[in-house]
Amino acid sequence: MKTADPELMRAINRYHVIDTIRRDGPIARVEIAARTELSPASVSAITAQLIEEGLIDIHHVPPGGDAVRGRPRVLLGLNSSAYHVVGVKLTAYRIGIAVTDARGGSRASLVLPVRVARQPPEVVADLVEDGVRRCVADAGLEMARISGVGVGLPGVIDGIAGISHWSPVLGGASVPFAAAVADRLGVPVLLENDANLVAVAEHWFGLGRDQAAFAVVTVENTIGLGLIVDGKLYRGAHGIGPALGHTRMQPGGLPCRCGLRGCLDAYASDWGLLRQAEEAGLLPAGDDAPERIAGLAQRALEGEEAPAALFRQAGAAIGVAVANLVNLLNPPRVILTGEGLRAGALLRDPLFAAVAENVLPTLREGTEILLHSWGDEMWARGAATIVLRRIYEAPWNASA
Amino acid sequence: MKTADPELMRAINRYHVIDTIRRDGPIARVEIAARTELSPASVSAITAQLIEEGLIDIHHVPPGGDAVRGRPRVLLGLNSSAYHVVGVKLTAYRIGIAVTDARGGSRASLVLPVRVARQPPEVVADLVEDGVRRCVADAGLEMARISGVGVGLPGVIDGIAGISHWSPVLGGASVPFAAAVADRLGVPVLLENDANLVAVAEHWFGLGRDQAAFAVVTVENTIGLGLIVDGKLYRGAHGIGPALGHTRMQPGGLPCRCGLRGCLDAYASDWGLLRQAEEAGLLPAGDDAPERIAGLAQRALEGEEAPAALFRQAGAAIGVAVANLVNLLNPPRVILTGEGLRAGALLRDPLFAAVAENVLPTLREGTEILLHSWGDEMWARGAATIVLRRIYEAPWNASA
Repeated sequence: MKTADPELMRAINRYHVIDTIRRDGPIARVEIAARTELSPASVSAITAQLIEEGLIDIHHVPPGGDAVRGRPRVLLGLNSSAYHVVGVKLTAYRIGIAVTDARGGSRASLVLPVRVARQPPEVVADLVEDGVRRCVADAGLEMARISGVGVGLPGVIDGIAGISHWSPVLGGASVPFAAAVADRLGVPVLLENDANLVAVAEHWFGLGRDQAAFAVVTVENTIGLGLIVDGKLYRGAHGIGPALGHTRMQPGGLPCRCGLRGCLDAYASDWGLLRQAEEAGLLPAGDDAPERIAGLAQRALEGEEAPAALFRQAGAAIGVAVANLVNLLNPPRVILTGEGLRAGALLRDPLFAAVAENVLPTLREGTEILLHSWGDEMWARGAATIVLRRIYEAPWNASA
Repeated sequence: MKTADPELMRAINRYHVIDTIRRDGPIARVEIAARTELSPASVSAITAQLIEEGLIDIHHVPPGGDAVRGRPRVLLGLNSSAYHVVGVKLTAYRIGIAVTDARGGSRASLVLPVRVARQPPEVVADLVEDGVRRCVADAGLEMARISGVGVGLPGVIDGIAGISHWSPVLGGASVPFAAAVADRLGVPVLLENDANLVAVAEHWFGLGRDQAAFAVVTVENTIGLGLIVDGKLYRGAHGIGPALGHTRMQPGGLPCRCGLRGCLDAYASDWGLLRQAEEAGLLPAGDDAPERIAGLAQRALEGEEAPAALFRQAGAAIGVAVANLVNLLNPPRVILTGEGLRAGALLRDPLFAAVAENVLPTLREGTEILLHSWGDEMWARGAATIVLRRIYEAPWNASA
C-alpha cells in the first residue's frame, strides 16, 4: 500500500463503486452508498463519470412492487459491451476458445480438436491466433474491440512474465508464449496456469464468490492447485502458482515425468494412471489421449479389479494431498474439479476417506470440500476472466 | 481495504512515516520524505505530531563529516521508552520471559526452569503472572507501563481468539490462555503459535526484514511453520497457523501423538526422535526432557550408528517437507531454526540433500534456505514483537 494522496483516494473509491456494481448490479445508487459507506454525493459523482466512460449503464425498472412512488427505479449495471475479452484453454488434445463480454457472458465459443503437444510452440501460437480470429469474427466483433486474451494451460507457468517453464502442452523449455500470441494478435495476452485460472474464475463468478480465501484442486492430465489468499491469487516468489502435483506422496516412490520420484502426479493424475496401467499390462504403451484414460475408467466402473484399484489408489493419494493442504494452510473451502474426477464414486469415496483420516482432529470441521464440474466452455470463460479481473483490479493490487 | 476518506488517508501516511522511522531511523526528515514520497510539509506535520505524542524523539548529530553547513543534523528515531512490552516463551520444560522497549531492545529477562507440561493451565497462568511481575520489576517498571504481553507456545493455537486448542505445553483441551493471563495481569495478552512468533520476529528485526514473503520452519519438540505472505502473517480460516508437523510424511506410517499416522512430527521432531529411540531400545521409556534428546544427539555425534541413523532420517524427512513447501508455495526464503537442529551436520546434510532431490527442477534456484539459531532470550524477545507489531500495525491490516 503506497502513501495516500487524493488521486489514490479517488481510485480506491471508484474501485469500490465498480466492484459493488459488478458483484451486485443492477443496483440502485442508494444501495451502492449503503454498501460502500460512501456519501450519496460521492456515489453520484463517481457513477456519473462511469456512465460517461461507458463502463456502466442505466437499467430502468418499471414502477410497481417496491417502487411505491410510481416512478421507474433507476438501477446501475456493468455495461456488458464496455469490454470484450477472449479466453483460451490449451490441453494436450484440444484448444478451447471463448469470447466473453465485460460481465463474463459468452458471445461465441469454439473447440479445436488438435493434438497440441506434438506441435512446436510457434505452431501452437499460430493455431491459437487462427482460432481466436475465427471466434472473434463469430461473435460479430473486430479484433480492435478485444481488450485482451487470457490463455490457460497446465504446468509451471510464470503468470507475471507470461512464460511457460514446463508444461505437458508446450514442453520442457522456457517458452514466452504470451508474447508469441500477443505478437500475432496485436492485443495484450495473459498466460496462466490452469489451476490458477479456475481459482480466479471461481472467485469471480463461481463457488468462491465473495470468499477471501479458498483453494482449487484440478485433477486432469496433471494435478494443479490454485490458491486465493486475502482476496488475491497466491503466486509465490517467481510468479508461478503452487505445484501440488509434484509434492511428495511417497519419498522414493514412482518415477514422475518431472524427473523426481514419488510425486502426487505419478499416482493420481491422468498421466500417472496411464503409466501405471501400462506398467501393470492393463494397456499397451501409448499416449495420453483422452479416450485411453476414459476407457480405463470405464473398465474400472464395470468392475474390472486391477483398473479399479488404480483409481481407488489415485483417490486416496489426492485425499492425502487435500488433507495436507488443510493441515498446512487451513483454507475454509477446497473446490475439486477436472476431468480426472470422471471415475466418480470409485475415486471420490477413497478421496474423502483419506481426507477424514489425515486431517488433524482439531481442524476437521473447519474446511468445506466441494466438487465442481467444468466443461470446455467453462474453462475458456475462466481464461477470459483473468483478463476481466485485470481490467477491474483494485488499485492496491496493481501488481498481483 | 475500506473506502477512503481523509481520515484513512492521514492514517496511511502516518503509518508510512512511523514505519520508515522504525525500520531506518534515526533518519532525517528529508530522507523520510524521499522514501515515503510524501511532501516535506506533510512529513513535518506528521513528525511534529508524533514528537508531541512521545512516539518518536530527536537525535542531534554533531556537525562534521557530511554536515557541511556546520549545524547539527536533526535525526528522528523511535522513542524507545514510548512503549514497554513483555514476551513469554512457553516450552514443556521452561518459561522464558523478556521485557523489551519499543525498539525491541531487552530491558530485563528471566528463565524459569519449570516442568510446565505437568501443571494444569491455571497453574501455568499463575507462574506466568509471577514471572512477568518479577521481570517487569527487574526492568525498573510498573505493570501500568506495560502495553501488552505476547505469549508464544507450540501447538494448534488460535492467535486471534487467544485459545490453545492443542499444545504439548497446555494439553489437548481448548484453553483460553490469553484471557487467563490477561485477567491476572490486567494488561492485553496476545497468544501465538511459536513458529508464527518467530516468523513475525524475523520479519520485524531478523532475516526476514524487508521481505514481503518467507517461511520459517521451527524444529523443536514439535515441527512448526510460520508463513509471511504479502507482508502479513498467514493464519488460514480459523486463526491457526500451518500445522507442518502433521502433514503426511508416509501415509499409514509411524503413529503420532495427534492420533494420526505418518506425520512429519513422528519422524523428525524431538518428540518423534525420542519415541523412535525408545521403540528401538536405545533409551528407556521416559519423558521429553531436553537432556534426554541432547544425550541421544551426543551419542549420534560420537558415532553410535543407531541414533545417528535416526537423526539422518529426521533430516531427510524435514528436507522432504521443506521441498514440498518450495514446490507448493515457492517462498523466496525459508528460515530453519530451533533446538532440533542440535545434531548439526548429521541432520543438516541429509536435510539439504533431500531438499535438492525433491524440489521441482524449474524451482531449484528460486528459494534460499537459511539457518538461524534462537536462544531463550531471542524467543522471548520474539514474543514481545507480536505486541509491538500490533502497536505499529498498518491501518489496512487492522484485522491481521
